[in-house]
Amino acid sequence: MNAAALAALRERLERFHALSKAAEVLHWDMETRMPRPGAASRALQCGAVARAAHEILCAPETRGLVDELGPALSDPGDESEPAALWRWAERETARRARLPAALVEETSRATARAQDVWVEARRRSDFAMFLPELSCVLELKREAARALDDGGDPYDGWLAEFEPGMRAADADRLFAELEPGLAEITARAIARPRRERHPALTGFFAIERQRGLGEAAARLIGFDFSRGLLDESAHPFTSAPALGDVRITTRYDERDPFSNIFTVLHEAGHGLYEQGIDPALADGPLCAGGTMSLHESQSRLWENAIGRGREFWTAFLPRLREAFPSAAGASLDDVLAAVNSARPSLIRVEADELTYGQHVLLRYGLERRLLSGDLRPADLPEAWNAGMRERLGLTPPDDARGVLQDVHWSAGLFGYFPTYLIGNMISIQLYAAALKDRPEIPERLSRGDASPLRGWLRDKVHRHGRRLAAEQVVARACGGPISSRPYLEYLRAKHGA
Amino acid sequence: MNAAALAALRERLERFHALSKAAEVLHWDMETRMPRPGAASRALQCGAVARAAHEILCAPETRGLVDELGPALSDPGDESEPAALWRWAERETARRARLPAALVEETSRATARAQDVWVEARRRSDFAMFLPELSCVLELKREAARALDDGGDPYDGWLAEFEPGMRAADADRLFAELEPGLAEITARAIARPRRERHPALTGFFAIERQRGLGEAAARLIGFDFSRGLLDESAHPFTSAPALGDVRITTRYDERDPFSNIFTVLHEAGHGLYEQGIDPALADGPLCAGGTMSLHESQSRLWENAIGRGREFWTAFLPRLREAFPSAAGASLDDVLAAVNSARPSLIRVEADELTYGQHVLLRYGLERRLLSGDLRPADLPEAWNAGMRERLGLTPPDDARGVLQDVHWSAGLFGYFPTYLIGNMISIQLYAAALKDRPEIPERLSRGDASPLRGWLRDKVHRHGRRLAAEQVVARACGGPISSRPYLEYLRAKHGA
Repeated sequence: MNAAALAALRERLERFHALSKAAEVLHWDMETRMPRPGAASRALQCGAVARAAHEILCAPETRGLVDELGPALSDPGDESEPAALWRWAERETARRARLPAALVEETSRATARAQDVWVEARRRSDFAMFLPELSCVLELKREAARALDDGGDPYDGWLAEFEPGMRAADADRLFAELEPGLAEITARAIARPRRERHPALTGFFAIERQRGLGEAAARLIGFDFSRGLLDESAHPFTSAPALGDVRITTRYDERDPFSNIFTVLHEAGHGLYEQGIDPALADGPLCAGGTMSLHESQSRLWENAIGRGREFWTAFLPRLREAFPSAAGASLDDVLAAVNSARPSLIRVEADELTYGQHVLLRYGLERRLLSGDLRPADLPEAWNAGMRERLGLTPPDDARGVLQDVHWSAGLFGYFPTYLIGNMISIQLYAAALKDRPEIPERLSRGDASPLRGWLRDKVHRHGRRLAAEQVVARACGGPISSRPYLEYLRAKHGA
Repeated sequence: MNAAALAALRERLERFHALSKAAEVLHWDMETRMPRPGAASRALQCGAVARAAHEILCAPETRGLVDELGPALSDPGDESEPAALWRWAERETARRARLPAALVEETSRATARAQDVWVEARRRSDFAMFLPELSCVLELKREAARALDDGGDPYDGWLAEFEPGMRAADADRLFAELEPGLAEITARAIARPRRERHPALTGFFAIERQRGLGEAAARLIGFDFSRGLLDESAHPFTSAPALGDVRITTRYDERDPFSNIFTVLHEAGHGLYEQGIDPALADGPLCAGGTMSLHESQSRLWENAIGRGREFWTAFLPRLREAFPSAAGASLDDVLAAVNSARPSLIRVEADELTYGQHVLLRYGLERRLLSGDLRPADLPEAWNAGMRERLGLTPPDDARGVLQDVHWSAGLFGYFPTYLIGNMISIQLYAAALKDRPEIPERLSRGDASPLRGWLRDKVHRHGRRLAAEQVVARACGGPISSRPYLEYLRAKHGA
């Protein structure tokens, strides 16, 4: 192998990675600190950085180095870091070569603009205000899909951005296996009489006291605050500017003490993944979560499989009571009933784990129709509301609680939603495998020690970053491919009665 | 004129500007929010963004457009925006063409690293820890000076980065005019018996109450919080990611209620400049303070000419007493005496306005010797301490309060210090001219209304951004060139008695 060529390729990829992470800082700041009148200029900044990063990958010199190293590194069975880096570079340079730099820059600018308009449109529940921006972003993303089309399903190009290695047909198959069972359990949950939350868990919960609780939850599962931080933002997210700088955000609801806790567990789940990557991969493109569904498997595992379980609350209930003595009237079972109640609701990020899937399937169906041109952006609110009625028996009272609720489309993240549901599937597969390998997990967790599970995840998932493909990670950890079956069984056992 | 060529040049310059501003956000975040273990990666990010920006200006296409537009736009008397933009582009492309991209990137990386080490070295007062980083940065900056050398004074290249249009000989002349008088007034101040601060202005001043005071001071002089913010950082600074996003920081000293107030006035002075630029210049390289000395004239004008004056304190003293009732025992005259006492001290940023100049002259002299090779970095502490003894009669008890006190050299900002002192000179020239044009300034200020002065500065200085050269701004506002005389007279009148 030509060591000089590898060093030269590495230098370029690290520069690309540094620019991508710089963009992450710009986004972090935009969501947490930037005065709103800075938004238009920030859009230009994001665009310029995205373009500079793109140009590195698209430079003929970069592709030349990839081609030169092919003979030495293209063996798909080679699991060394250089071979994994080469695979990443080969795939990304091929993908990027099909996207014109002007399209990349214009998309970055348009989405930064659209996100700013979306915030205001959602606040006013004014879809008409958002429509021109959405149409613009959608057209750019459809142009990208056409540029990436390799003759298969046109949705493949969108999905590949977040889930390399997976095709739309794979997602269709997983969802087709899931949907009938999910619909049946959901219908039964809709029909069931609603169980009211224990009164001690309702009322007013001061944000000042919720802050410490969120931090305690993150600490309990092992988020490392010496290499990260927890902030507040309107839309919670995780950002990882560096291996030593992993950031999560939450938001607070004064009427609900759990919303913040589950948000923190979710984002800290993402954060643990980023913090657990092998330091040998630092500052290069392999230093990231494998795919979005694998990332989401980590957030959902801690949020749901752990965070809604008896063991976590055995350890954490004293903390809740300490922060809110008024909640002491509720027993452990009352808390578990409150955090596991399943009933249709309007907002995806607040949905319970049963109905969550319906929210994703709705969006996935709409995205496929938007891409094909079968659905026009102007008709989205109507199609959205029809889908909500059909899937969950609810009609959103306004677009803020309907089609305007998610940031994704304004951010150009078409193709992202399916990874949420696939991530849920993987989370249950992984947790089952972890319990088999480390039977002490529940007992230790109930004593406030999450290290057995965290250690298992670090070993099986986190440390690999993008060195292994997602399907390899799942196959080795769980002994089989990604499947919807364990997830469906889990939902049936918990919510099907 | 070729409109297409101008549009193409503008597009490139705006992309350069967007990347420069992205770098500003990275630095802001580094100083205010980033967990320390993120520092090494942040250095790479800063380097990659700096390099991408540099490459735009150095691209042959950019210089080609500049050359193509020369016949139409190179008339030095043309004050239109396109001509000003062309002048900026001509100067910067010529300058950058002489700096290799690898040197720019390496300097950006080295300084981000060196700043991180400097923070720790200063904390420990350990010059030896900082020396390797300092030597590395200095060597890169000396290489830059050699690359920029046009046969004149080698210091010209350093100075031009911050003070385009000025040469080292100009600074030498201004300082030579100033130095004998300054030395004489300083010597008298050193000999004078020290007047103790009124006891009501000593003691403990809770940071929580200082916060509101700082914000009130910024509001009083007109800093627009809807398009900016005030945060805390170890080393106060101003950052302007966008016309609608101007940020200042302060720091708090629990033993001194004034330190925060003067820091805020200083930074808000910078901030007012950035907020006052003509919106027609937004998002391009002319949207910035003219030169560093012009920028510093704005911060020092508000900090000193205004902030240490009777009118400001007539308006602001009630606020101080409200925040700290224990301070009510001090009269207006006691406060004025406290904030105007002049005596030699160790730290530049805490120095009174009389002795401040000596700190700058010390650094300027050392920088010239470091550049020529006459002084080695290892010998800096000794040279520093000798200079302090000679100029101010003080010997720093440790390097933290000596050679390690300033961030500039770790940040590669060689050539920056002289602009501070020149900025002080300009601040006094501008204030004298403002008083002549708007005699109502003091009376209105004593009633808490800073708008007459702010309006005059906006008109004469702020709005022009980089459309006019600094010497043009000063000449038009003050009716003459930059001069040390008014400054010396001001110091003599105030501190010479």
